[in-house]
Amino acid sequence: MQIEIITIGDEILIGQVIDSNSAWLASELNGLGIRVSRITAIGDDPRQIRDAIDAAFVRGDAIVTTGGLGPTRDDLTKQVLCDYFETRLVFVPEALDNIHRLFGHRGVQMTEADHRQAMLPEKAVNFPNPEGTAWGMWFRKKTKHLFSLPGVPFEMKAIFTHSMRPVLYGMTGHQAIVHKTVMTTGIGESALSAIINDWETALPDTIKLAYLPSPGIVRLRLSAFGNDTDDLRGETERQVSLLKKIIPTYIYGFDDETLQETTGKLLLRGGFTLSTAESCTGGYIAHLITSVPGCSAWFKGSVVAYANDIKSGVLGVQADTLVTEGAVSEKTVLEMANGIRQLYQTDFGLAISGIAGPDGGTVEKPVGLAWIALAGPAGALSREFRFGKERSRNITRSALAALNLLRQELIRIQGLF
Amino acid sequence: MQIEIITIGDEILIGQVIDSNSAWLASELNGLGIRVSRITAIGDDPRQIRDAIDAAFVRGDAIVTTGGLGPTRDDLTKQVLCDYFETRLVFVPEALDNIHRLFGHRGVQMTEADHRQAMLPEKAVNFPNPEGTAWGMWFRKKTKHLFSLPGVPFEMKAIFTHSMRPVLYGMTGHQAIVHKTVMTTGIGESALSAIINDWETALPDTIKLAYLPSPGIVRLRLSAFGNDTDDLRGETERQVSLLKKIIPTYIYGFDDETLQETTGKLLLRGGFTLSTAESCTGGYIAHLITSVPGCSAWFKGSVVAYANDIKSGVLGVQADTLVTEGAVSEKTVLEMANGIRQLYQTDFGLAISGIAGPDGGTVEKPVGLAWIALAGPAGALSREFRFGKERSRNITRSALAALNLLRQELIRIQGLF
Repeated sequence: MQIEIITIGDEILIGQVIDSNSAWLASELNGLGIRVSRITAIGDDPRQIRDAIDAAFVRGDAIVTTGGLGPTRDDLTKQVLCDYFETRLVFVPEALDNIHRLFGHRGVQMTEADHRQAMLPEKAVNFPNPEGTAWGMWFRKKTKHLFSLPGVPFEMKAIFTHSMRPVLYGMTGHQAIVHKTVMTTGIGESALSAIINDWETALPDTIKLAYLPSPGIVRLRLSAFGNDTDDLRGETERQVSLLKKIIPTYIYGFDDETLQETTGKLLLRGGFTLSTAESCTGGYIAHLITSVPGCSAWFKGSVVAYANDIKSGVLGVQADTLVTEGAVSEKTVLEMANGIRQLYQTDFGLAISGIAGPDGGTVEKPVGLAWIALAGPAGALSREFRFGKERSRNITRSALAALNLLRQELIRIQGLF
Repeated sequence: MQIEIITIGDEILIGQVIDSNSAWLASELNGLGIRVSRITAIGDDPRQIRDAIDAAFVRGDAIVTTGGLGPTRDDLTKQVLCDYFETRLVFVPEALDNIHRLFGHRGVQMTEADHRQAMLPEKAVNFPNPEGTAWGMWFRKKTKHLFSLPGVPFEMKAIFTHSMRPVLYGMTGHQAIVHKTVMTTGIGESALSAIINDWETALPDTIKLAYLPSPGIVRLRLSAFGNDTDDLRGETERQVSLLKKIIPTYIYGFDDETLQETTGKLLLRGGFTLSTAESCTGGYIAHLITSVPGCSAWFKGSVVAYANDIKSGVLGVQADTLVTEGAVSEKTVLEMANGIRQLYQTDFGLAISGIAGPDGGTVEKPVGLAWIALAGPAGALSREFRFGKERSRNITRSALAALNLLRQELIRIQGLF
């Protein structure tokens, strides 16, 4: 089975909103063995909506749309779909109850616009929205299916999970697709490609390889297509095993596992605790870590020492070090790592100081320079990195490099290699 | 002038990568008065690429593609475009020089794959890539234009800015589009829609309104279309002035200004400094703040006190408070705010403690509960919030609510209203 996604909303076409819904939906649909053959974004315009549906139904039998179901006037999708599938809007008491419950719970008053949300198409299967007022809809016309979901991501996800996924599960046959993603860090796309060239050349025809680079991370996605899921899974795992032998240190995980999740597992396994002292990353390392549910088992917190007097006053970096070596130096970052480890009473203290940009660089210490240090039970180590010119990318790459330094040290200590 | 965007890459269709390029390009193209009429995502497949180009050229004269220009084998776009536009790849010494310079600078060795990147189409205008090895290309065939850019966002942006934008600037006529976005926080989409209903109804036909909600923020986008940019701008500003009188406290800025930028400007204007003490947000407030270049003028840093003994040991929250009131309580968060203000010696101390989820909630203190406190020169204040069930959304909404509390207090102090 295959399906097309149509994203409805002027905000996408003028670039005000990034379409993250399609990626989430595509990933979920793939998990059901449903291939997404195309994603199209169009404006809040009845003719564009009808044309896009017509064209997609020429190419295939199933469409899922997102967007345009809100309570405000720029949201036209529901009426356009009713006209397209020759039905009309009727009042659904259950939907109004749901809206009442939703607003009663939140203590916010209901509006006329919310009442309009309880009007739903007569000849569609309507999917309740546990998170908001815009219900999902499933229209059918002979062999053609159209699912319409709201554009607000968490509402769309809730309706898909509760209602649309079960429906699709019933509809799908058994086409086998297996994806496996190898997560790497610490090496660029070209260098990686050169190292794994022989392995790549020897891949069987059933497996397709894609390089997916993002700042600090290159994902290698293996996609296997065929008749039998177990066979494909076996062959994919065999190829991944071969790859592991070629690049053991660069691989940190699989299938979109994050570096913070991997590192957290290693800390947990060793019974270790962690604290961080951040200058240039400004709390981003702590934010990555605390995005992992349950991290309180191994993470005690961070000191974001953006000002120099916090580095000395709170973390105990010597005033002399800051004057003679500067805030971005090996000595400073080692003192920060030892300082946070002692202050927070943790097994490991991870510290970073760098120049994120756009200003603050010199010839000797250019924008992109970062020093990272790790203090642990067996002493401290430090490393220098040179990233690029762009602030947000430097923050991301610095934070990932710091986590990777910790990961590698934990592996060394635990003798996993 | 109008253009279609075609995004090439299996990674988009299987949902592994979110297409952020299209939003950036659409926003830039709009700024040149070029309307994006459609965005289509297709796979790394020669037939799909050709079909999508054919269909777009039936609807219009201009296409920009992103993706598929990398050095690895899954990248097919360059060859497919050469075939489509009936030209061949030739060696371009200048491109090789650029690659040499790029790798010399980074100290990474060049690979065979990189050499392939110096092969470029003979009958296209090739755009240098200052950030990577994949050059941009501009193909022409009678009245039809196709621009091909790499998929790596910062490379794509650099080529667009240096080469493609100047080309488009020369090609475009004078069609007037004016967008103005009003940024609001502290109110939901439906409630906002009810309050501004009369204003919305009275908008002239030339102005279109869109509601763009995201966690903690609703953007109101006014789009004006017509013949004269100055006229449109004047009318848009007039409507925004009217809106300001209706919802003065919810509006925090314009045109995608962030809450941290607005708040930073208010601190700077008052000559104030800030520190933060974060529990549930885990460094995310500090990360938002330090994403603003130059924030060191008003931000000294943060203590991420994820563990309770950091709240007491570093921030000075009384052990008694933690035992009797709990970590998520008004008393704790007030002590955190006063503690960080004193420890970091800043004018304001902003603190937050809450239950981000998925675990840790009770009947009395459910997931989504957060207490926020602000300590300042004139004393401290606190507020309770109840957000939802989803961890990352709770972190985002908590951080924005904390910044908004600070913003409102700064406005009150500075007598701006």
